[in-house]
Amino acid sequence: MAETSEVKRRGRPPKQIDGYQDAKVALIRAGLAIMTEKGFSASGLDEILRSVGVPKGSFYHYFKSKEDFGSTLIETYGEAFSAKLDKFLLDEAYSPLDRFFYLIENLRKYMVKHDFQRGCLIGNLGQEMGALPTTFRQQLIDVFENWQKKTTICFKEAQQQGEISADLDCAELARFFWVGWEGAILRAKLERNASALDNFTELFLRSLKK
Amino acid sequence: MAETSEVKRRGRPPKQIDGYQDAKVALIRAGLAIMTEKGFSASGLDEILRSVGVPKGSFYHYFKSKEDFGSTLIETYGEAFSAKLDKFLLDEAYSPLDRFFYLIENLRKYMVKHDFQRGCLIGNLGQEMGALPTTFRQQLIDVFENWQKKTTICFKEAQQQGEISADLDCAELARFFWVGWEGAILRAKLERNASALDNFTELFLRSLKK
Repeated sequence: MAETSEVKRRGRPPKQIDGYQDAKVALIRAGLAIMTEKGFSASGLDEILRSVGVPKGSFYHYFKSKEDFGSTLIETYGEAFSAKLDKFLLDEAYSPLDRFFYLIENLRKYMVKHDFQRGCLIGNLGQEMGALPTTFRQQLIDVFENWQKKTTICFKEAQQQGEISADLDCAELARFFWVGWEGAILRAKLERNASALDNFTELFLRSLKK
Repeated sequence: MAETSEVKRRGRPPKQIDGYQDAKVALIRAGLAIMTEKGFSASGLDEILRSVGVPKGSFYHYFKSKEDFGSTLIETYGEAFSAKLDKFLLDEAYSPLDRFFYLIENLRKYMVKHDFQRGCLIGNLGQEMGALPTTFRQQLIDVFENWQKKTTICFKEAQQQGEISADLDCAELARFFWVGWEGAILRAKLERNASALDNFTELFLRSLKK
């Protein structure tokens, strides 16, 4: 869940955007905001273009196709989220398991801030994969692998410091976390509250220590 | 993941369906098959109607709207899956935890059989909720609650028989399972293999015993 600037246009005319790069960035931001909420299939290009004041006909100046746009969004989101993982999981001010906990807390805050309407772009598109361009599949898998790799490193440090039981496989645990966490986001969006996130976090953390 | 009869029409003309009730049942089956794969937003009514040979104009003889159709699918799927839970979790030939394990094994087989293309209708629609009719929300929540309730009863029996650690809350565990399992289905569909299901099952079962 990368933080994207919220597009606040309600009741105001779309802001005029100057410059090719500015418009492209604005389209990416608006795409991320809408697709973290509704996924790919249900997000219309018209709605995205309208929200940033880019004329309907000029989308193809910026992206070759909706597929190209989607691919750019996956890349942007994956990288922003990866940077967030680094920010939290490499912060030596805290113990490895505390860093992980603060990361989860940050992800939870993001969902609260957006009233449990926005989830994870990678989870949304992963769920929809049966109806998406096939080129997205490997790209989405790679994003998850990257997150898991970074989490595995943090768990290994935690294990070395005795925060995680020595007989657990950290790579398997990291996979277990990200697999289950996507399920928790799905349910939190459905129920519009944090209960599934809290339940999953508590029982996952418990499973590390035994 | 209720088992639905597979609609095999490739290369053959659609079968003529006689009778109102037969056509309605065929539409429900085809809807379940397509939506467990692609979700709601990406599934076109045309495709569903064509696959069962119901003329395009007559959909509204059977359902008031796509929303009414979706609601019927949620109900049908929820009930079929609930019956499956009863079949496995109430089978006194096995210990409670074995019953649960055989259930998971059955769900895994279903995904293998459909080459990891079909997942869970409730998970798919839950993920898409931001773009779906609001009436679906409570219906989907209720389905999950029902599955969790049945699983909780099984876990309580397992706990009484010493198969689950006495200090665990069975309702919380059942919620943890279904939340995470939906994440595992999502990932298995994305990766087109059983690895996420197996990883989740193994670490979940491990967490019960500690």
